[in-house]
Amino acid sequence: MTTNPTLVEVVRGDIVESRHVGRAVVMDAQGQVRWSCGDIEELTYPRSALKAFQALPMVASGAADRYGFSDQQLALACASHNGEVSHHDCAAAMLEQLTLDAEDLECGWHWPMSDVATRELVAQGITPDALHNNCSGKHCGMLALASHQGWPTRGYVELDHPVQQSIRKAIEVCWGVDLERAPVALDGCSAPIWAVPLRALAQGFARLAAPASLPDQYQAAATRLLNACLQHPWYVAGSDRFCSRLMTELGDQVFVKLGAEGVYVAAIPSRALGVAVKVDSGDIKAVEVAIANVLARLGLPVSGAFTRPDIRNRKQRLTGHYQAATALSSPLAL
Amino acid sequence: MTTNPTLVEVVRGDIVESRHVGRAVVMDAQGQVRWSCGDIEELTYPRSALKAFQALPMVASGAADRYGFSDQQLALACASHNGEVSHHDCAAAMLEQLTLDAEDLECGWHWPMSDVATRELVAQGITPDALHNNCSGKHCGMLALASHQGWPTRGYVELDHPVQQSIRKAIEVCWGVDLERAPVALDGCSAPIWAVPLRALAQGFARLAAPASLPDQYQAAATRLLNACLQHPWYVAGSDRFCSRLMTELGDQVFVKLGAEGVYVAAIPSRALGVAVKVDSGDIKAVEVAIANVLARLGLPVSGAFTRPDIRNRKQRLTGHYQAATALSSPLAL
Repeated sequence: MTTNPTLVEVVRGDIVESRHVGRAVVMDAQGQVRWSCGDIEELTYPRSALKAFQALPMVASGAADRYGFSDQQLALACASHNGEVSHHDCAAAMLEQLTLDAEDLECGWHWPMSDVATRELVAQGITPDALHNNCSGKHCGMLALASHQGWPTRGYVELDHPVQQSIRKAIEVCWGVDLERAPVALDGCSAPIWAVPLRALAQGFARLAAPASLPDQYQAAATRLLNACLQHPWYVAGSDRFCSRLMTELGDQVFVKLGAEGVYVAAIPSRALGVAVKVDSGDIKAVEVAIANVLARLGLPVSGAFTRPDIRNRKQRLTGHYQAATALSSPLAL
Repeated sequence: MTTNPTLVEVVRGDIVESRHVGRAVVMDAQGQVRWSCGDIEELTYPRSALKAFQALPMVASGAADRYGFSDQQLALACASHNGEVSHHDCAAAMLEQLTLDAEDLECGWHWPMSDVATRELVAQGITPDALHNNCSGKHCGMLALASHQGWPTRGYVELDHPVQQSIRKAIEVCWGVDLERAPVALDGCSAPIWAVPLRALAQGFARLAAPASLPDQYQAAATRLLNACLQHPWYVAGSDRFCSRLMTELGDQVFVKLGAEGVYVAAIPSRALGVAVKVDSGDIKAVEVAIANVLARLGLPVSGAFTRPDIRNRKQRLTGHYQAATALSSPLAL
């Protein structure tokens, strides 16, 4: 049993077929919980929802300036991208600016997250490399920090490497957490990942939404990364991906980012609010619907395609839909 | 909140990262619940876990004999197959025996469930057709029943078509349920699917495990379908698929079948037991681990690769594992 509420229901025909329990929290930049449901103190791996903060020390160090990274490249450093041609080429250009190559990336390779991109590669007889890894932009950013600081580029994903310790320090001071005793594990791309209370994750993104609330040394870098993502949402995910579609629909009103195993975060600059959601099942589609409904409840103009998406079958016949459960279905007047 | 227990935990590093609540039931062929957890009366769409019963009226009618279906073809009629070459060709041969073709299938098409099979098609410049649909064997079986009975083959997936009404009747008398008022919806392949208590689904598979407990007219057909699946597990799913791997590991001791949205069933002939599990989140990997643990608790020699599978990252580094939660972690002496 769990004391977490159902966040999202999957309806087929006239009944609920599946349901996703979880927890969600809205924080402000002053450190106040503005709304929550479920256990927001449970330790949670942010997974790829963290990427903007993994890029932060790199930009704050001056590495982004030194290597002349564009806003698209900074957005890619915060991305879980589709491995489409322009994502691949954007990461390749970052490595070229560093005079490094794909062999220096320690993220491993996988077929592109985009099935369409995968089929295009296969049709052209191209074998994917580490640049197609959805984390390649993040790893280019880590290599940039190592190069800029004169640290070894080899082993940059290891926990005791100064790149990872710089990231740890940024998280600690920006989110207000002590990671000394926090559980730490390997992410899919071999970078270390610390578990934090879900509340702290939302706290971090509230402060990203209001960079003046961050420690001085990170304010300019956070502003630059946030704006890069808001201006270039396609580079944060890609074609037909929820993060990119939602950011595009909402103009530059909100930054959203998926993390593996059912994590989503949002930063809302106009409100100085941060949101973190974890669907306990780890389901991507469910957490997409959950974050869309939290944002809609906060008054953002999120359309029904995000908050109540249809489910269609192989013949495109309508078979059901996703919907917010009670915990997420009334407006929040914050 | 839910009163269903956690069935499966996803561990990363030293902590539980995700968890899956759900319900499970073991029934015997006499209609007794031998063990259960969670709400086993909740209405549940069996989805593709149902396929052996969707094939039953076809075999019982004499259609399988008339069209000379092999045991591999009968296993394919009960399958959610990978769309590999031999699955495709097996379904194509069924249609040829019916003097029909892929245009007569009403399941729609999708890229093969197997990513490897998809990439092989793309590399050869082949566009998939309805024969690659994981349900194509089932649909060939439905067409065989229509042809054999002289019913129209067009519209065989519609609820009021005699093929679907024959299936409904088979479910009602074999599982002991009245579907008159049961919720009915469209499956991914456009066939109708009725929601039943999870208990009734397990009841059906307990009776499949002991065909003598079924109504007379279905006993021989059930025996034949069960043996076809036990002898040809590759045709029930395919390469590197859980159903096929587990049935292969256990020899002919158990039939197992996945259904979409987190359903799994098992029929254990030596014990005359049936099992049904629903993971509320609909997660495939979680329900695989759940059914493996239920079978292990029943004393079947299921290895750790199924009950506690490792999770490895892009570099093949060990990052965690799946494990049974408390509700599934002690032996059942039935």
